[in-house]
Amino acid sequence: MENNILFQAQKAKKAAQILSIMDNQSKNAILSSMACSLSQSGKEILFYNEIDVSAAKESGLSISMIDRLVLNQKRIDDMCKGLEKLILLKDHTGEIIESSQTSEGLDIKKIRVPLGLIAMIYEARPNVTVDAASLCLKSGNVVILKGGSEAINSNRVLAKIILSAGIKAGMPDGAIEFIDTLDRNAVYELLKLDKYIDLLIPRGGEELVNFVRKNSLIPVLSHGKGLCHLYIDEDADIDMALKIAINAKCQRPSVCNSIETLLVSRSIAHTFLPQICKAYYDKGVAIRGCPITKSIVNTVELANDEDWNSEYHDLIISIKVVDSINEAIEHINKYGSKHSDAIITENKKTADKFLKEADSAAVFVNASTRLHDGSVFGLGAEIGISTQKLHARGVMGLKELTTTKYIVVGKGNIRE
Amino acid sequence: MENNILFQAQKAKKAAQILSIMDNQSKNAILSSMACSLSQSGKEILFYNEIDVSAAKESGLSISMIDRLVLNQKRIDDMCKGLEKLILLKDHTGEIIESSQTSEGLDIKKIRVPLGLIAMIYEARPNVTVDAASLCLKSGNVVILKGGSEAINSNRVLAKIILSAGIKAGMPDGAIEFIDTLDRNAVYELLKLDKYIDLLIPRGGEELVNFVRKNSLIPVLSHGKGLCHLYIDEDADIDMALKIAINAKCQRPSVCNSIETLLVSRSIAHTFLPQICKAYYDKGVAIRGCPITKSIVNTVELANDEDWNSEYHDLIISIKVVDSINEAIEHINKYGSKHSDAIITENKKTADKFLKEADSAAVFVNASTRLHDGSVFGLGAEIGISTQKLHARGVMGLKELTTTKYIVVGKGNIRE
Repeated sequence: MENNILFQAQKAKKAAQILSIMDNQSKNAILSSMACSLSQSGKEILFYNEIDVSAAKESGLSISMIDRLVLNQKRIDDMCKGLEKLILLKDHTGEIIESSQTSEGLDIKKIRVPLGLIAMIYEARPNVTVDAASLCLKSGNVVILKGGSEAINSNRVLAKIILSAGIKAGMPDGAIEFIDTLDRNAVYELLKLDKYIDLLIPRGGEELVNFVRKNSLIPVLSHGKGLCHLYIDEDADIDMALKIAINAKCQRPSVCNSIETLLVSRSIAHTFLPQICKAYYDKGVAIRGCPITKSIVNTVELANDEDWNSEYHDLIISIKVVDSINEAIEHINKYGSKHSDAIITENKKTADKFLKEADSAAVFVNASTRLHDGSVFGLGAEIGISTQKLHARGVMGLKELTTTKYIVVGKGNIRE
Repeated sequence: MENNILFQAQKAKKAAQILSIMDNQSKNAILSSMACSLSQSGKEILFYNEIDVSAAKESGLSISMIDRLVLNQKRIDDMCKGLEKLILLKDHTGEIIESSQTSEGLDIKKIRVPLGLIAMIYEARPNVTVDAASLCLKSGNVVILKGGSEAINSNRVLAKIILSAGIKAGMPDGAIEFIDTLDRNAVYELLKLDKYIDLLIPRGGEELVNFVRKNSLIPVLSHGKGLCHLYIDEDADIDMALKIAINAKCQRPSVCNSIETLLVSRSIAHTFLPQICKAYYDKGVAIRGCPITKSIVNTVELANDEDWNSEYHDLIISIKVVDSINEAIEHINKYGSKHSDAIITENKKTADKFLKEADSAAVFVNASTRLHDGSVFGLGAEIGISTQKLHARGVMGLKELTTTKYIVVGKGNIRE
């Protein structure tokens, strides 16, 4: 297996050179061919997906895991639509970012170029096979795909379809390499190929991401944990606060940009807490509160320190009463995952302080953290939300799959 | 010691919050106070530097190492001038990079913010103490400085001077933390503090950089190896080619952007090689050539495969005759360190091909690789040249010491 993966990486590296200089029109023709082929292969895709889903059910995988594994006609249509949307997006490669000319006539440009070879390591959802491959292709990168074993049949058929459609439309052989194995060592083998792979993107649980970070010298761009907060300030519009607190927790609790902790200013706690707790109970949310919260709404469970550190991914919320905006910011910077945090306030000074001092990838005033999203932010397609500070922070799109290069043209210039 | 370093990191992290929102004028006042204090402390600095230099001589450190360790009045003046120059540079923090408004009235801005806490791990040159601390401060970052043991007395006195001058001028306590120990474990202790440190910058030999990369989960921004090439194309202006080949090798062979390998098109090899070899011999350069080179200039030593992989940092060059631009690019992408590579040609098509396909941080046409430099490229100050592709590629200045943050202001917006 070792040799197979090495061979695939070498093949991909060769294709990278060709793909990196391919024009946008040619790349779009490939994406279009993929979309067309996928839409014609519904039956085949569903046949193989059913094999994975049955096996998952038999092996007792969780319902949410199975939900992510299942494909249906709508989800196939969504993949095709995703490809069509991608065709319309701007190709950032070749863009001139900075440009200058020295007095000695040296012409210096900083341009955007593809990263090279990206390895995508993911779990469960088979649509990532198509999403990741197409995003990489559009940004001029070749990709090695390593999906989870629970989705092997679905991933294999999807990879086969887009690969053969791509090649027919002029895609260089090797531009998309699918690692077709159930051997758990495959990920580890990939991590060793720092000579070939320019970037690793792990997409899945914290365990997978940490394994990748700890075991490789290859740079990692990871979709991090989302422990998000909403702070209701003393100068909040209470109706707006209620609406956003409900949306940020309940609209889709399983995703990373929903909130886990609600912070409430002490001076409005007596008014706000009974209302929000009633609303949460009506929505089936379990509430874990600090002692002051419990003294106001005695039906809440008492929170412990672990609660402030918990990403529930579920209809559970922790609530803490704080004395000031400073205490709120301190709590967020201490317990948060630097993902998405919000404040509700009508006070501009307080809002500005929050925007400046809350150290998160995205900070919101009077808006739901659920809005931290590629389509809302105008990126078109998104490959994840980064909680790291280097290279990309917050929602990542096509631009974040590129790097830069200085191109310098002289007239015989030397260093004196 | 462990506890000391942890304590220093915690103290620095607290200062980071204050420094990150400090305005440019206040930061400049601190830099100005440092410059003033340094220029008044020449005697004290030279006294302590002499202790390090004597010890280095006694312990038999190499001449080039001792040269990097030595301070004199000119080098102290240069540090002060560096600070004065930094004051005039633009503060990039707070800059709005992207801005958009959604149809639902959501106002989205991507702004530039400091990274937070940077740990700088460096060797030999004591001026890095001042350069790194001041670059970090100007970009709103707090810094932990860990210099080499050979420069401990020089680094300690420099840190003491800028720290006390900084505090007097309003710098938050903890903004510059100097690790004052000879214990070799200190670096290892630093690498474990991923909870506090946002970025590691190792500056020194390949061994130091690799140790840091391998032993930490903290992101690393490293000044990489410089194995640079110059390709003399068949359509080159021979006089220009000679001038640049000499400059790129001989002007300062010990630095990373000087060339190690000269590639020569076969069709001009008979004309060009005798001339350049004579010029190199006149400058005292040792030449190691491929068999074709040797067949043309029989005084050259025969190169072996190791030569194409060698960063000599010295008056040594390897020369290879290639059949085509393709072979030249292939050689560069295989053996190069993706740092700085150049072509000499009058043919625009060939030049464009080279600019596109040579996969280096900076690619040059008709100019010396020695020009890959912060001041030439208009960055003002430089903290190194990155050969990595993530976050920063090529010469790194103040901008590369920042990250971004989305600030989003709504009117009660939720996710539907």
